[in-house]
Amino acid sequence: MSEVVGELRDGQQVVRAEVSQLPAIVDLLTDDHLGSARERPADDPAYAAAFEAIAADPNQLLAVVLADETVVGTLQLTFIPGLSRGGALRAQIEGVRVAASQRGSGLGSAAFEWAIEYARERGAALVQLTTDKSRPQAKTFYERLGFVASHEGMKLPL
Amino acid sequence: MSEVVGELRDGQQVVRAEVSQLPAIVDLLTDDHLGSARERPADDPAYAAAFEAIAADPNQLLAVVLADETVVGTLQLTFIPGLSRGGALRAQIEGVRVAASQRGSGLGSAAFEWAIEYARERGAALVQLTTDKSRPQAKTFYERLGFVASHEGMKLPL
Repeated sequence: MSEVVGELRDGQQVVRAEVSQLPAIVDLLTDDHLGSARERPADDPAYAAAFEAIAADPNQLLAVVLADETVVGTLQLTFIPGLSRGGALRAQIEGVRVAASQRGSGLGSAAFEWAIEYARERGAALVQLTTDKSRPQAKTFYERLGFVASHEGMKLPL
Repeated sequence: MSEVVGELRDGQQVVRAEVSQLPAIVDLLTDDHLGSARERPADDPAYAAAFEAIAADPNQLLAVVLADETVVGTLQLTFIPGLSRGGALRAQIEGVRVAASQRGSGLGSAAFEWAIEYARERGAALVQLTTDKSRPQAKTFYERLGFVASHEGMKLPL
């Protein structure tokens, strides 16, 4: 049985991802204007290794949204303890995707509202994420949820 | 004995922070135009609790730079396993501070060069951080190290 971590509307559920859902998650990551160039075939062993590392870490939650048992969305929450901001626990969101069939349906907002509430229940004082500047519509989406683009998100590929 | 994780120049060492160094680290976090409004007295129990959570998590490294056994810098490295980018391990840097007495000395660059190399050795494919837009000189500093400001860094305080 999947571990249900949230209920959205219309019977959609947020569950902790299981390894059987890994190909569907990789498909979502790949079906994206940035992901299409970055991702590999879903059976690449790097994904299985990363999945195991996520599952073994209690500060990670790889979540999928299920509609009629089909994976229609995914996001990863990472809880980061830190000293800054008075010893604040941070919740970070990475790897957000919504299936093309569901875009515009409100599923993304519903999933984020769930994630923010989940972070609050786990004691986080801050939710943070970075969004590629080539996705201006994503920035607007996050601003509507209350996020402020106060920081530069800087990346250095190794 | 401290766990030495890096050697800089002039005998400066990077070590895993010990709880006895916590007040000095909080002082560094506070001696900052943003930190001065955000941080609390160093003996606030929230810091001790956060320190314990960091120390208990093998994906966290709270590092301090020592010069003659004095804490002159700090940064926190977080390793985040993820599926995106072909199952890439990310190294994230938070809570960066250099003592006022050392600013302009090259210590910040040396500490970052160490952190980037440490991340590479741990298998990270990407180093990431966010920097407040009210610190434009910090953005330039990171760009000199090779970081690209490709993302918006979005924050939602809870």
